[in-house]
Amino acid sequence: MTRIPFDEMKATIKQAFLNAGMPEDKAEVCARTHTESSRDGVYSHGLNRVERFVEYIGKEWVDVNAEPTLDVNLGAMEVYNGNMGPGVLNAIFAMNRATEIAEKNGLGLVSLNNTTHWMRGGAYGWLAAEKGYIGICWTNTESCMPAWGATSGGIGNNPFIMAVPRKEGHIVLDMAMSQYSYGKLQVTRLKNQKLPYPGGFDKNGDLSDDPGAIEETRRVLPIGFWKGSGFAVLLDIISSLLSGGLTTAGIDKFDKGSCGSCCQIFIAINPLKINTQEFIDKALGATVTQIKGGVPVKENAEIYYPGENSLKTRKENLALGIPVDDGVWAKVKELATIK
Amino acid sequence: MTRIPFDEMKATIKQAFLNAGMPEDKAEVCARTHTESSRDGVYSHGLNRVERFVEYIGKEWVDVNAEPTLDVNLGAMEVYNGNMGPGVLNAIFAMNRATEIAEKNGLGLVSLNNTTHWMRGGAYGWLAAEKGYIGICWTNTESCMPAWGATSGGIGNNPFIMAVPRKEGHIVLDMAMSQYSYGKLQVTRLKNQKLPYPGGFDKNGDLSDDPGAIEETRRVLPIGFWKGSGFAVLLDIISSLLSGGLTTAGIDKFDKGSCGSCCQIFIAINPLKINTQEFIDKALGATVTQIKGGVPVKENAEIYYPGENSLKTRKENLALGIPVDDGVWAKVKELATIK
Repeated sequence: MTRIPFDEMKATIKQAFLNAGMPEDKAEVCARTHTESSRDGVYSHGLNRVERFVEYIGKEWVDVNAEPTLDVNLGAMEVYNGNMGPGVLNAIFAMNRATEIAEKNGLGLVSLNNTTHWMRGGAYGWLAAEKGYIGICWTNTESCMPAWGATSGGIGNNPFIMAVPRKEGHIVLDMAMSQYSYGKLQVTRLKNQKLPYPGGFDKNGDLSDDPGAIEETRRVLPIGFWKGSGFAVLLDIISSLLSGGLTTAGIDKFDKGSCGSCCQIFIAINPLKINTQEFIDKALGATVTQIKGGVPVKENAEIYYPGENSLKTRKENLALGIPVDDGVWAKVKELATIK
Repeated sequence: MTRIPFDEMKATIKQAFLNAGMPEDKAEVCARTHTESSRDGVYSHGLNRVERFVEYIGKEWVDVNAEPTLDVNLGAMEVYNGNMGPGVLNAIFAMNRATEIAEKNGLGLVSLNNTTHWMRGGAYGWLAAEKGYIGICWTNTESCMPAWGATSGGIGNNPFIMAVPRKEGHIVLDMAMSQYSYGKLQVTRLKNQKLPYPGGFDKNGDLSDDPGAIEETRRVLPIGFWKGSGFAVLLDIISSLLSGGLTTAGIDKFDKGSCGSCCQIFIAINPLKINTQEFIDKALGATVTQIKGGVPVKENAEIYYPGENSLKTRKENLALGIPVDDGVWAKVKELATIK
């Protein structure tokens, strides 16, 4: 396995974005965000997503020069048009703005309409937590999953993120509404493996852990069956109604790539406005102790709190370099070649 | 199957609450809420929960005279102490207050610490939607589910609710973090049936659809496996940090019944502050059309949007009477006997 140092990966991605026409400051932030995603183990939305992002710029599905503009100001809540700018930059702007509003109003909610793919949603939860804020955010997406009771697509996998700052390591949930991504199905099939747990329905309508059988039907499973299906619908319509932007059905029609003109919600709250640091440390400490103190499924195995694995991977990848797929890395280096 | 008219059920429950020492106005609201839960098909937290609520009053685990008191006012966000008053009344107060704050600040968030079981969480989503607001709320609970990777309890099933107002029927998600409740496991076992989908692990550590085998291990499944486990943890700690109240670990120690001194979050937003009614109608209409327009799993079967089934059940139960378990109904009538 090839491992690439963080700084080398970031510089290479940045050059690829500069070559695609991004201004220097924007290329810097986007490159850092992609590299951080790979550093934390979310390879699918880090280095592996660079080529597609460059392709979207080329197709004019992303406007590298666009900036978010204010649509509505309601005090604790502000609505922005993302103007089809880079989703990563719009999302960083929105979560930062939410933290500013939170200082004045207790909490801040910023919504974006007409934005583009934010890559790894968790990035904005970690961002809020790094600044000392509780962060909650979600996005809608194009449809890629059947609603419960249906065999054909209709709802998005709408990632949902919650993050809580904690000195010893932030507690972060970053989940899509599908049990497994299509990327995970493909990778598992190519290894000739089964999924660890059922991930969808096969052509007979039976639950299956065979990734190929699920790719065939495209009946991926929402988390919790009917529950995740309903959650996906609510995340979608709330993100649209709080931003005045497109629903999943609208994104499907808009048809400018994955998440083209999607909507996103960013909520920030400063827990120190309500509690002392001592109370917070005690509450989080007791929770982590309770989780990690359970009886593990396998003897001597560790039980992780949400986000703990990301930190472990981060530490390892910073020490040893970030693992890359050689083909993907070669492609990004090609995009980064100065012609 | 015995069916009881709505008004008769409500009057009977109200008398039971009066007999338990509740003031008349509070007994009226609590009785209506329990009856509405049964009316909508959530029998477990409607009529079936009356006896236990009366028992909690008798044990002084619920203070029927307590009112919420303001702890912190941050503008768009207010924190209240529920003072161990009836959870239903505290929750109705909190969601109503959130809607008032939303008118001024775009959105309103009200948190409760030191409250008691709110019965059916969905009630407060429907309440917000009836008033024309998007409602989001959740509660933490005592631990009743192993965290992912553990075989023993440690996390709550922390119900999460999202509701969006819609003329033709509100769109409402009301879900706990466990795939099935213990009540559902018991009912299914007593019928000698299997669960429709796997609901936990048996003693060999295998996924199982046998309710008895899961009751034995108490390894109920979080929705989406590791995802629902993480979601439960985040809902718990955020409700505690936004209210200054107990986490699941703290509720376990407090030990005054289910949800004794729990924390709850209520968020309200008026979508008409951002969009026209026409935009809202169109966005929701397109989404419902897309969901219901999928290819159904079984020929001619209907695909439901979230909340649609509750409305169907409501209509049927209002027309025919609300189905009751004869033993439960006899017990509530006994509690309602004026001595």
